[in-house]
This record gives sequence, C-alpha cells and structure tokens, in this order.
Amino acid sequence: MRNRMEEFIKTLQQRIVEEIESIDGKKFKIDRWERNQGGGGISCILQDGNVFEKAGVNISIVHGKLPEAAIEQMKTRYKELDPSKGPYPFFAAGISIVMHPLNPYAPTVHLNYRYFEIHNDDGTPKLWWFGGGSDLTPSYLFEEDAVHFHKTLKDACDKHDVTLYPEFKKWCDKYFYLQHRGEARGVGGIFFDDLDRKPAEEVFAFIKQCGDAFLLSYVPIVKRRMNMKFGKEEKHWQQLRRGRYVEFNLIWDRGTKFGLQTPGARIESIFMSLPLTARWEYMHIPEKDSREEKLMEVLKNPRNWVA
Amino acid sequence: MRNRMEEFIKTLQQRIVEEIESIDGKKFKIDRWERNQGGGGISCILQDGNVFEKAGVNISIVHGKLPEAAIEQMKTRYKELDPSKGPYPFFAAGISIVMHPLNPYAPTVHLNYRYFEIHNDDGTPKLWWFGGGSDLTPSYLFEEDAVHFHKTLKDACDKHDVTLYPEFKKWCDKYFYLQHRGEARGVGGIFFDDLDRKPAEEVFAFIKQCGDAFLLSYVPIVKRRMNMKFGKEEKHWQQLRRGRYVEFNLIWDRGTKFGLQTPGARIESIFMSLPLTARWEYMHIPEKDSREEKLMEVLKNPRNWVA
Repeated sequence: MRNRMEEFIKTLQQRIVEEIESIDGKKFKIDRWERNQGGGGISCILQDGNVFEKAGVNISIVHGKLPEAAIEQMKTRYKELDPSKGPYPFFAAGISIVMHPLNPYAPTVHLNYRYFEIHNDDGTPKLWWFGGGSDLTPSYLFEEDAVHFHKTLKDACDKHDVTLYPEFKKWCDKYFYLQHRGEARGVGGIFFDDLDRKPAEEVFAFIKQCGDAFLLSYVPIVKRRMNMKFGKEEKHWQQLRRGRYVEFNLIWDRGTKFGLQTPGARIESIFMSLPLTARWEYMHIPEKDSREEKLMEVLKNPRNWVA
Repeated sequence: MRNRMEEFIKTLQQRIVEEIESIDGKKFKIDRWERNQGGGGISCILQDGNVFEKAGVNISIVHGKLPEAAIEQMKTRYKELDPSKGPYPFFAAGISIVMHPLNPYAPTVHLNYRYFEIHNDDGTPKLWWFGGGSDLTPSYLFEEDAVHFHKTLKDACDKHDVTLYPEFKKWCDKYFYLQHRGEARGVGGIFFDDLDRKPAEEVFAFIKQCGDAFLLSYVPIVKRRMNMKFGKEEKHWQQLRRGRYVEFNLIWDRGTKFGLQTPGARIESIFMSLPLTARWEYMHIPEKDSREEKLMEVLKNPRNWVA
C-alpha cells in the first residue's frame, strides 16, 4: 500500500500541476526536499501568477518516529497509543493542495489525501488509516459553483457507497469551522479521517476516486470566474476573507499543528497553504443585503448543495 | 487591589490614547463593551492613521467562571487547580496594547499588564498573580532603538529590584519565540507571569512602574522613524515580517489562546493585535549581507541590549 499510495500521489501531483500551468500560463517552482529524520517530498509552488496569487501542490512521503506532541493532534487515535510505549515508528504519504486565485470571484480550493501507518517496534503494522477531503472557500457566493463542486465530489463518493457523501459533507462542515467566529471557512466539500472501516484496498480505491475528481470539481469554476471584472471593493473583501483563512489554518487546523510538531517538518511546504496577502480590520461588518452579507449568511448556516 | 488595578489601567489607557493621537493626528475609535458572563472593557482602535496602520489600546475587567480549556492555558497554575472542583470563579483586569506603524522603519510595539484572581466558592481568594511585559518588533534593526527600549524597561525594573530585568528579559526572549521558525518575534523586552512572590502591594507598584514606562520606551523611537523615507522594497519586507507576527499570535501566544477559549470573549478586541495587512511568500530568503539579513541574525541570536 505504501508504494501504491506514493505512486498515486506522484502521478496526481504531476497531472494537476500541468493542468493548472495550462490555465495560469506561468510555471510552478518545483522543490524536491529531504527530511533528515526520514523521507522527503516534492513541493510545487506557483506564486504571483496570472490567475493564481499563490498555488501549492505538495506531496510528502515521510517515515520515522512519532513524537508525543504529534500523536496528541490525532485525537481519536491517541487512546489506542500508549505514549509510554512510544515514540512509535510511522509512515505517512500525502498530497496537499491549496490554490488562492487573484480574482475575488474565483474561490480558493483545498485538497488533502493522506495514508498513515503506525508500526510496532518489529515493523508490523499496528494501525493504518486514510484521511483527507477537499473544500471550497469563495469570497463571493455563486450557488452554481458550490453545487458543481459538491456534485462532483458526491458523484465520486457515490461510486463506492452512497452513505459516504452525506457523512463526509457534514464532517467537512464541522471540521472547517472557525469556532471563535461562529462561521464556516467556506462552502465546504468533504472531509474524513481515521478511515479504516473497510479493507485497505477498498478505501484506497475510494481515495483515488476522490483525488481524480479534483480537476473536474475545480477547473470549470476557476475558468468561469478568473476573467470576471472586479474592483477595489471586491479585492478588499477578498483580503479580509483571506485573513479568516489564515485564522483557520493557524488556530484550528489539526494538519497544520501536526506538521509544526513533527521534527524536521518543512515549514515552507506547510505554509504554502497561507495566502500571499491577508487583511484584518477592526469590526468590519458587511452592509445589509450586500453580496458580502450573503456569503456570511451561508457561512453561518451551512447549506446542503446537492440532494 | 481589584479597584486599584482597574483605576490604574483606565488612567494609563487614557494617557496613552491621548499621546498616540497627538502623534498620529487621527482619533481612536472608542468602544465600550459588556460581557454577558460578567464585566466588560473599553477598546480603543486607530486604523488607517497617518503614522499607525493599526493601533489598539484595550482594557478589560472581567469576572465569572473559568472554563477548563482556559485553565489549561495557564500551565503553571493548572497543577494548583483541581479541574473536578471547578469551574472556579475568577476576576481579571488587564491592559493590552499593540501598535503597527505604517513606516517599515518604525517598529511594532506590544504591551500587556494583567491582574488575575481565582476565588473559592465562598468568594475568598484562592490564588492571585500579576503578569505582563512589553516587547518591540522591528522590521529593520536600529540598534539604538533596541537599546533605548530595553534601557527604559530596565530602569523601571531596577527601581524595584535589580534582579528583575535580567530575569524578565530572558523570559521575554523565550516567550516571544516562533519555535517553528527558530526565530524570535522581535528584539524582545520584558515578560513575566504568575508574579506573586512578593506582597501584592509591592508587585502592583512594580506593574505601575512598568506601565508608566511605556510612552517613554516607545514614543522617542516612533518619532524618529515615522517620517523616514522608504520604498516598495522596505514595505514588502515589512509585510513579510507582519506575517510572522500573525504566526506568533495565532499559533503560540497563550494570551490569545486564553482569550479565544473564554466564553463571551470579544474576538474583535483580541484580534486588534493582528496587523492590518500581512504577507506570506514561499521560500523568501533575505539577500546576503542585506539589512533584512541583519535583522534575521538578531532574531535567531537574541542579544543583550543593556549591560
């Protein structure tokens, strides 16, 4: 499974990089890096592009010993791992994507799929699971975009089990939630963790389906928004929303926290998820009945976008 | 002590607001707010000023029941508090200042002084302590500014006990440290917490001395930097450094975490500490022997600024 997951994320990374380059016209910067404690990765970053302010498509395949602080970020797994018997040998392979377009009408997108193994000292697997998801964060709400994004993910899920999309859609709304603001990060998508309820083969097939759905879910949206005319006001609002994106990633995201607590983690790769620029204003409240307020309503009351 | 601390922070807030207004030329927006769970505060914010991009001078005087999550942020105190006997009634009064100037040569400054009490159910005090400090975060290093800032704080400390400044200077370097970057937030200052080692009267006198030293420590610096000529490059570097400020506050600052976990906390007042704008670039590395690199050297190897 380790080799096949590695193969899958490498191929997916390449496909996505090529497609995004063809849309943007600018090339990604490609950095291969190694981790002293074991493993490494490939970070592909496009910055100051024609369409994307910042876009990152990263993979990492790492192994080593799992420190206690990192285990603590894996809430549900923590109980199964006796810290006094650690640190545990682990293997992790994952792909992470965040794309922040320039145009305020084009939404930010995020994807992450990962495979995790924890071993006993003799190398036998103690635990394994898959996790991940994909979600959309618009500054302005276009219902058709949210519907298209969710529909594409639902179709991918339904091919495996029709109970998955409703479950993972709810999980996504719950996970990408800024508790301190009482608002969702965006219009959601799917999210899941600790997925080991079926044989690894079946779960892997599902993960592949989800990963392969990425371009289908996002490219049509960014293509219809990237050339829309916008002014200072829209850019201003986008920057405030980017501030919220930073808040979520630095305060709440377990993936980021996990990364920061992993010895030898590559900070620059973890922080590719942060927007190029962001803004915080004191007491900024959208005008009544404005398009900005319309977005906030959806963030405060997550909707079901597909039946 | 509650009343006297309240009186002190109110007077100090007023004095600082007036002085900063006289430098900036623009007035603070003053918001009085109440907390449903008990108490309230006064937030004074100056945004898009002539000298300051964003400056906040806040006080809060709150009381109520302390939730477990908030207690957990008070690491050293946690042991003395049995969570099963909580939530504990508490009282807290504090003043918080963050000022982000427009000019990249003018440093950001931060101050916080607070008094905390935890009571038994019968209202008798179980624990009390003072905490706080003040630190300076330049984008460009002017040694004379760092020396002046530290010297002013040292003078205030020395009036009470010559052992305080060396101890609290070190504590500051340790606290305002971005572990994930291996760099300090700025050139430091003083920081301390859980101060109850002397009678409350004496500690309060020390706190007052520190608070009163704020304008002396910062105003001369901002006055000599605020009109210096700068270009796009300097502004760009300042924005990247502002990104680091956001990282510290959202990832590491216990005060911010404590605030976010206090029911009924006023998010807009907590987040006044965030800069108006910030920037994150992938793999930005200052040029060799540049002024930017000179700052980084000091952040990676904190110096003693006064003997």
